[in-house]
Order: sequence, then structure tokens, then C-alpha cells
Amino acid sequence: MIQTTLIAEPGKQEYFMSVTFDAPRELVFKTYTDPNTIAEWWGPRRLTTTVDQMDVRKGGVWRYVQHDSKGNEYAFSGVYHESVAPERLVQTFEFEGMPGQAGLVVVTFEELPGGKTKLTEQSIFPSLAARDGVIQSGMEAGAKELFERFAELLAKLQA
Amino acid sequence: MIQTTLIAEPGKQEYFMSVTFDAPRELVFKTYTDPNTIAEWWGPRRLTTTVDQMDVRKGGVWRYVQHDSKGNEYAFSGVYHESVAPERLVQTFEFEGMPGQAGLVVVTFEELPGGKTKLTEQSIFPSLAARDGVIQSGMEAGAKELFERFAELLAKLQA
Repeated sequence: MIQTTLIAEPGKQEYFMSVTFDAPRELVFKTYTDPNTIAEWWGPRRLTTTVDQMDVRKGGVWRYVQHDSKGNEYAFSGVYHESVAPERLVQTFEFEGMPGQAGLVVVTFEELPGGKTKLTEQSIFPSLAARDGVIQSGMEAGAKELFERFAELLAKLQA
Repeated sequence: MIQTTLIAEPGKQEYFMSVTFDAPRELVFKTYTDPNTIAEWWGPRRLTTTVDQMDVRKGGVWRYVQHDSKGNEYAFSGVYHESVAPERLVQTFEFEGMPGQAGLVVVTFEELPGGKTKLTEQSIFPSLAARDGVIQSGMEAGAKELFERFAELLAKLQA
């Protein structure tokens, strides 16, 4: 069982989500940035996620679409500012259902003893209201499920 | 004489810089996003600025290099998240001399009565320390000079 930690200080337009995986950093980075694995872990189990675009390099565009059983679609997209394998990824992020609220996500991959890797996502928003709206939408439970799926995928890749 | 207004609330990892130009919004947006004009206004007069890359579209990369009289170079770069002419531009921003400190800039172009345009740059940083460092580096004086040059260019284009 993995543990996901959310730090969202009052009054700050950012939050930090951290989780430690029992897998080496190279594998964690490679899996996190592989378009072919997104459908297996990005988002909750009840939705199907498809990758419309995902070109992990400076200026590359990413766009994921989530589909529910009723045919609704939820699209998220952004661009990569930098990809420094296996250490850091910086990208913009926008929920297309709320245009004009793009944020910045800084993902760091830190090597820990015993072949483990600590992944931290810093999400920076254009306003405190935008951050709080995302947190109140149930983001934390969603992120826990997403990282559980990611840990299962890493275990499968190492089996 | 134009007036530049800086709003940097204590404890927030962002600042807002606003300035009103005596020019229509279409011209302000077009000039702001034209690679051929950057050398005439982007940065202080004592430095020469060259455009290495500037491709204003989602995923496009921009990179400017400033040169001083001693041969030193200062490079800034980022990617465009979106360009919504003539209203809004969202892009990442990084001073290459301080890698790993990328921020997000949201530029809005607002039509005012009398053919004027209010331009606002919201600069969002990965930390409060990063924002305060930029402000303490003399950013405000630099921005005033930059927008004075931009206003001169707009006047010339309308002459």
C-alpha cells in the first residue's frame, strides 16, 4: 500500500503531492512519461483515458481525454516546458472544461535508498481560488487512486 | 509618458504588472507577438536583444538572448501554452542562468475606451523566494523601461 501526501498551505496558490514508489528512478520516470502506459494509470478506474497527444520534449503538447460510461468526455492538456530525464518534468496543465485557468506542474523524481523513488508533483495555479476549487473537487482521493494504479503498473513491470 | 503599475502582495508567489497604451488592442497584441520587433523593445536600452526562437502558438518555443557591451550573454526561454489573439497569451518563462525556476506568465490585452489597451502580465513563480528574488533584482525599473520602449514602438507604428 502506498502513501500519498498532500501539502496545501492556506493562502498559497499551489499544492504538493508526494508519493514513494518501490521502484528505481529510471523506471519511474520512463513509465510516467510513456504515452503507451497512460491508459493504465492516469485517472480513476471508473473512467477510460485515451491519449490524444503526448510528445515529451520542450514544446511538446500533451492532451488526455477521459470518457465515462455515459459518453461524457473530459479533456486535459498542456505543453512541456522541459523534460530532464530521470529527474524533472515541467509542464503546463489545463482542464479544457475551465479554459483560461492554466497552471504549471513541476514533477521531481528523487532517488531514495533501497531502490525506491519519491515522486513529487508541485501544482501551481493562477489563483488561490483555482487551487481551492481543484482541491474541493475531490482531487486528493483521485490522486490517491491514480498513484495506486501507477504503483501497480510499476510492480507489474518489475515482476 | 506611460504609467506602469506593479502589484506584488506580500506572501504571494506572483506579481501583476499593468500598463495602458494609446493604441488599439489588435495592434498591441500583434506587436507584442511579432519576433521582428523584439529587438526594439524587449529589455533595457543598454543591452542588445536577439531572438533565437519565437514561434507563437501552442507548443511553440521562444528564446531571447541579451548581450551587453562586454560580450556577456543572458538567455531567457520558455514555451507557449496558448495564444488567443488579440486577448491572451500564456507562456512559461525561465532565466537560463537560474535553471529549475521556471514560472508561468499570463498576458491579457483589454480594450479600453478611446482606442486604448490595458496590458497586464501576471507572473507566477515556483516559490515566494523566486518571486522576491526577481523583484529585488530591479525588475520593476527594467519593466518600466521595456514598456516605455514598447509604447514608443507603438507610436511609431501608428505615425
